[in-house]
Amino acid sequence: MKDTFIIVDFEPIGKRVEVKPGASILEAARLAGIPLTSDCGGVGSCGQCRVIIRQENNAVEPPTSIEENEFSEDELSAGYRLACETIVRGDVKVDVPSSSLVSGQRLQTESNLHEDAKSDSRPDSIIQSYSLSLAKASIHDLRSDLTRVLDALFDLYGLSNLSASPAAVRPLSSLLRQNQWLVSALVRGNQLIGFLAPNRNPLGLAVDLGTTKIAAYLVDLITGETLAADGSPNPQIGYGEDVVSRMVYARETMGGIKTLAQAVHKSLAQLARALVDMTGRSTQEIAEVCLVGNTAMIHLLLEFPVDQLAMAPYVPAASTPLEARAIDLGLDFAGDCRVYIPPCVAGYVGADLVAMTLASGIGQDERTVMGIDIGTNTEIVLSFPGQKRMFALSCASGPAFEGAHIRAGMRAAAGGIERVWLEDGIPVVQTIGKIPPVGICGSGIIDVIAEFRRTEIINWRGRFQAENPRVHKGRDGLEYLLVPAVESGTGESISVTQNDVNEIQLAKGAIRAGITALLETSGIQAEDLDEIVLAGAFGTYLNLETAIAINMLPDIPRERYRQVGNAAGAGAKQMLFSHRKRAQAIAIAHDIDYVELTIYPDFRSIYAKSMLFNE
Amino acid sequence: MKDTFIIVDFEPIGKRVEVKPGASILEAARLAGIPLTSDCGGVGSCGQCRVIIRQENNAVEPPTSIEENEFSEDELSAGYRLACETIVRGDVKVDVPSSSLVSGQRLQTESNLHEDAKSDSRPDSIIQSYSLSLAKASIHDLRSDLTRVLDALFDLYGLSNLSASPAAVRPLSSLLRQNQWLVSALVRGNQLIGFLAPNRNPLGLAVDLGTTKIAAYLVDLITGETLAADGSPNPQIGYGEDVVSRMVYARETMGGIKTLAQAVHKSLAQLARALVDMTGRSTQEIAEVCLVGNTAMIHLLLEFPVDQLAMAPYVPAASTPLEARAIDLGLDFAGDCRVYIPPCVAGYVGADLVAMTLASGIGQDERTVMGIDIGTNTEIVLSFPGQKRMFALSCASGPAFEGAHIRAGMRAAAGGIERVWLEDGIPVVQTIGKIPPVGICGSGIIDVIAEFRRTEIINWRGRFQAENPRVHKGRDGLEYLLVPAVESGTGESISVTQNDVNEIQLAKGAIRAGITALLETSGIQAEDLDEIVLAGAFGTYLNLETAIAINMLPDIPRERYRQVGNAAGAGAKQMLFSHRKRAQAIAIAHDIDYVELTIYPDFRSIYAKSMLFNE
Repeated sequence: MKDTFIIVDFEPIGKRVEVKPGASILEAARLAGIPLTSDCGGVGSCGQCRVIIRQENNAVEPPTSIEENEFSEDELSAGYRLACETIVRGDVKVDVPSSSLVSGQRLQTESNLHEDAKSDSRPDSIIQSYSLSLAKASIHDLRSDLTRVLDALFDLYGLSNLSASPAAVRPLSSLLRQNQWLVSALVRGNQLIGFLAPNRNPLGLAVDLGTTKIAAYLVDLITGETLAADGSPNPQIGYGEDVVSRMVYARETMGGIKTLAQAVHKSLAQLARALVDMTGRSTQEIAEVCLVGNTAMIHLLLEFPVDQLAMAPYVPAASTPLEARAIDLGLDFAGDCRVYIPPCVAGYVGADLVAMTLASGIGQDERTVMGIDIGTNTEIVLSFPGQKRMFALSCASGPAFEGAHIRAGMRAAAGGIERVWLEDGIPVVQTIGKIPPVGICGSGIIDVIAEFRRTEIINWRGRFQAENPRVHKGRDGLEYLLVPAVESGTGESISVTQNDVNEIQLAKGAIRAGITALLETSGIQAEDLDEIVLAGAFGTYLNLETAIAINMLPDIPRERYRQVGNAAGAGAKQMLFSHRKRAQAIAIAHDIDYVELTIYPDFRSIYAKSMLFNE
Repeated sequence: MKDTFIIVDFEPIGKRVEVKPGASILEAARLAGIPLTSDCGGVGSCGQCRVIIRQENNAVEPPTSIEENEFSEDELSAGYRLACETIVRGDVKVDVPSSSLVSGQRLQTESNLHEDAKSDSRPDSIIQSYSLSLAKASIHDLRSDLTRVLDALFDLYGLSNLSASPAAVRPLSSLLRQNQWLVSALVRGNQLIGFLAPNRNPLGLAVDLGTTKIAAYLVDLITGETLAADGSPNPQIGYGEDVVSRMVYARETMGGIKTLAQAVHKSLAQLARALVDMTGRSTQEIAEVCLVGNTAMIHLLLEFPVDQLAMAPYVPAASTPLEARAIDLGLDFAGDCRVYIPPCVAGYVGADLVAMTLASGIGQDERTVMGIDIGTNTEIVLSFPGQKRMFALSCASGPAFEGAHIRAGMRAAAGGIERVWLEDGIPVVQTIGKIPPVGICGSGIIDVIAEFRRTEIINWRGRFQAENPRVHKGRDGLEYLLVPAVESGTGESISVTQNDVNEIQLAKGAIRAGITALLETSGIQAEDLDEIVLAGAFGTYLNLETAIAINMLPDIPRERYRQVGNAAGAGAKQMLFSHRKRAQAIAIAHDIDYVELTIYPDFRSIYAKSMLFNE
């Protein structure tokens, strides 16, 4: 019976279900617990359950007449379908746009760090805006439009030696004549980068380009106010879940780098459009972008080759701060808007770690502080007193905390189990959105493992103890019944397998081994740490007690932990405004010594030990 | 009979003939005297007489099977045809690629000015090239590729604070690994703009973007040597013969500016490709471009709006020096190669006049010198001793000297009559390429008018004296039989009409009126001029004696005239190399006072008087 089932993969949620041939995508989504919007209940009349079919061959029946009415030809050829009308015939991958979800995927854009952008004094600003009222051109004053602007900037503000690129000049002539010769000139260093209608403040865009998620913030560059924030999945997920598989794609596919770059460019443009739409502004008013990401993401954004990054000794093409032009990334922003990318440290320690270190203040005082940004790659930085240097490393913790390689795993989205505890041997679960559970997300799986260990369902090596009544032999060996089918949102039971436990051991072991190596390198003990900063969405949502219980994080007083949210994004926002913050970031990148784990003495045995639980 | 004739326009040669329906384009070309290559004699077997049909509707019969074999589908849809196989049915415009001509159109790229690029000392160079031998990346030296370069530039050459754009970085990693970590780094100011394989000299491209013609020069930026020169017609001719009609097209057509810009971008790319092909180099080695042109050409190149340039008071969007990125103009050159555009003076006095003034040394000594660049617009500049300022103006001399509006007129190409004299009342003609005459080009028509006046075939007002045996009444009034049908290359007689004489009077009158106005403005007499510099192709080929005889140029001692060839192109070449030359050009633009003829007192009467001949 099993062999006639069809696998439906839902992206970017990362949920997989098996259905019988002839089921609709909507049925599969319901089985997977994915809250697809469907006001009409699945009869094809509301047009809300839009999905995109990713498989090229005949995995699904052709569009029905209802769908032919619903979609344009362009949409149909791009794979757009109504989930309720689409009948599956073979294994299929389905993209679920966030607009089709009752509650969007949780894409953390907040941070609880002090951003202090507003306090930056005017002379420190990256973009300076100058209001100008110009004399009208006449037969007795034949200066060019640009000369008129440059003369006024000198006369009124004492600015000289400014230059302007053609992209900056292009909109000037009509803007002047539409606004009675009033204009705001945007100056960046010694460059005149664009013009705005009078009394419009320039906007800035801060971006945290993660392997899995993109977070973006729209800010007013004069008031310092954050006007809007939004996130979206990194569309490169379709070409590989982690940076290594994406680099393989980039290297082995003709035009692969361009494909990956353009996918991200498009998402950035869409995010920017969404943000300005929320605030009634225009992308043409965006005058500066600061973008952080890991080294590989930045390479793939800028179409840098990745051969040298993917192979030992894994060196970046460039690690200094870079400035791209927005237009070159497909972003139709103000005139000559630049995209500033802070420095990277090494092939696997990127501008995002630098931004996180900046925003969370690591290394800026005499305390011993460790910063941990947990993701598919986990970066760890350590500052300690009396030293100008810091140490940083990256460990391949893998995507298990994002739900990958875990049978019932999923990303943090509605229906995901985020908290678990055992009461008298009976598991109690709490889900995102308080709806019936459809899978387990990262913080939930850590809770599960910790509870397994506390109640000795698993031993210190992570092996199931077969005596527990909820442990039984499943198709892949022993498994633990977490949620019975009747309580599950999918109608199928949710279990945790021996393999799931092993995956989490690998992931948490990598992080713990990194922590150990970094402490060893610095010659200090965990208890000497004044603070551990946990950054990033997962680091913020995880349950500190259970993460310590499974020996993933050091057992130091809980008040020394600080869960700061998207610190990389907060750092990007700071650097959007301020020359001083950019200089600080350059100093941070310079002060960090990279620790390469592949040549770290005894790392294999440290790693092996870190995978175990406390005896 | 006449009314059944079909008009065939040949571009860019600018020759028009009438043929009967059913004639082939090759027959029309022969009639027009256009030397189309056709080794097979017109039977469709040599494939040489390639032309492009510009008319969209059914002006010609569809392609024959011979042509379907000869051309790709892309070529056919682009309008490519064999002239011998293409039968005309209605009025049609035909593009003749220069490759299809026995002898190409004469596109002057030479100048006889001292270029002195080679003498520029190294520190003055725009592009500096540094040879580097780098330490290989290893697990013990994990610096990024760019950092490795920047460190070496500091260690070996003391350079610091360099930045590099993503476009410059992109080729570095593979270049290093293909060349055993040897590389040449190209530095421009504080920018690292690209990289070359070791021991390759960077190339430069100087361009004179004329309304009618584009001249381009490929130079070695280290040795200063000019490696190749070539020219092509400005493809915007198809959208308007002069700048005014092109601006009308740009303003009135949706996307018109982009269309005009891209047409020129494509020609520039083709010229660059042709130049590197001549020399066995690569466009990727071109590290700097200097481009001059009139103000309107520069606007249309950079996609600047032209509304403000086309309407009074005719101000440019920008007149300061500009730097575009080669890639933005569709030029696939070295990394971040820039296109430098020197300053303009006013809406009708452009960077080409500045370059001409620079290259011909006007204003650089204590002499009184006038520079005249004759074209569709003629720009005139005047320097005189004891003044830091110069005066310049532009006069709309029109395209008559390019053969337009002259019945038998044509541009300077094979078969064009370039010299004429009357021996005992019988005209003797000399043609370009010494082949039977097919039309009259600019210098020839001036000779004709001068000989008419010398022998009193026309009076001082330019009216034909009907007594001459070769003057008879033609279809447009009186005309003079210059070449009888039996001596002509077209099989049709070549005559000069009363209207032709009037057109030349308008053109030479405009130039002479400009000269007069400029002399008046400066308060000096023609005989005070120490020198008159005649620049540009036409100014070089014209017969000084006859140009003076028709009262187009002042009657001063002939040795004070200097015909310098393409001085604008020579100036562009100088500015390609040298910071000093660019600074000089900026000073020149700053020192020139623009004289606006539309508000010049009594200009109409000066112009009316200038159209007349000497009594």
